[in-house]
Amino acid sequence: MFASRPAVHPVEAPPPTDPVEQPTGVLMKDLPGMPGTAGGLALRLAQFAFAGVALGVMASTNDFPSVSAFCYLVAATILQCLWSFSLAIVDIYALLVKRCLRNRRAVCLFAIGDGITAALIFGAACSSAGITVLIDNDLNICAENHCGSFETATAMAFMSWFALTPSFLLNFWSMASR
Amino acid sequence: MFASRPAVHPVEAPPPTDPVEQPTGVLMKDLPGMPGTAGGLALRLAQFAFAGVALGVMASTNDFPSVSAFCYLVAATILQCLWSFSLAIVDIYALLVKRCLRNRRAVCLFAIGDGITAALIFGAACSSAGITVLIDNDLNICAENHCGSFETATAMAFMSWFALTPSFLLNFWSMASR
Repeated sequence: MFASRPAVHPVEAPPPTDPVEQPTGVLMKDLPGMPGTAGGLALRLAQFAFAGVALGVMASTNDFPSVSAFCYLVAATILQCLWSFSLAIVDIYALLVKRCLRNRRAVCLFAIGDGITAALIFGAACSSAGITVLIDNDLNICAENHCGSFETATAMAFMSWFALTPSFLLNFWSMASR
Repeated sequence: MFASRPAVHPVEAPPPTDPVEQPTGVLMKDLPGMPGTAGGLALRLAQFAFAGVALGVMASTNDFPSVSAFCYLVAATILQCLWSFSLAIVDIYALLVKRCLRNRRAVCLFAIGDGITAALIFGAACSSAGITVLIDNDLNICAENHCGSFETATAMAFMSWFALTPSFLLNFWSMASR
């Protein structure tokens, strides 16, 4: 049975009363850095690369397991790598099939995940920075520690957090503005 | 000259094209915790109290200046006290004169200030936590340090951050959703 297409049109009237799709004044529609854009993919790759370098540098020192904060940094960078890599894959898929990733549930999930991983990696970077500054400036025992590696890993973790913050803010903004 | 009221109605049509006032679907209008509400004032007072306790406990130990992270915690809690106290005063004023604080510039300023102070106090709490765990669990030298005070101050700084996060998220949400 083939009904003619125009019969479907009257059904399209109700949506304006239902605020699921963005009503008006949503400026962030195509801002670079949102998921599913080339900017978003670049941010994800930067997060992944910085977290990966931090993980590699920290894991290359043989005495990191003796300090809890450095173990926590390793755990946080592993989680960050997994999260950013997964979302980079999703972004590549969205770019290849030219699909918009801006549905409500996906944005909500991205914002919550970004918020949690941002808090974890920032906390790990700050606690490592506290220890590094203690070893280097307060106690001056760099000669018997891998200060260079610890500082590099901490700096890379901060860089990963810097790349993650725009993703979180854009996703949260996008979640709020609809 | 008295024009009849219905003559005004055609003029009301343009506003929907101008997205200055919230269009539709804005749920956060009177959510407790926003600036200018009793919930917002309670959050500010909690932030102030926790940061004040953290500052007092940390400053009461005589050896905190020997560790950079603890000095940073003291600085961050002072800033947090000043910021939360100022905004508590603004909230009390808004409650007394029953004024709505939700104009665009004020919300923008509150969101940015909350974001900066949240990052500062969370970073300070994390770096102090890293040092405290190092002293207590990794090196086991609590006997010659004020571990109890350091841990209390760190926990209070985290509590202050927990009270600050809803303020930041609500302000940022409110900024995005108009």
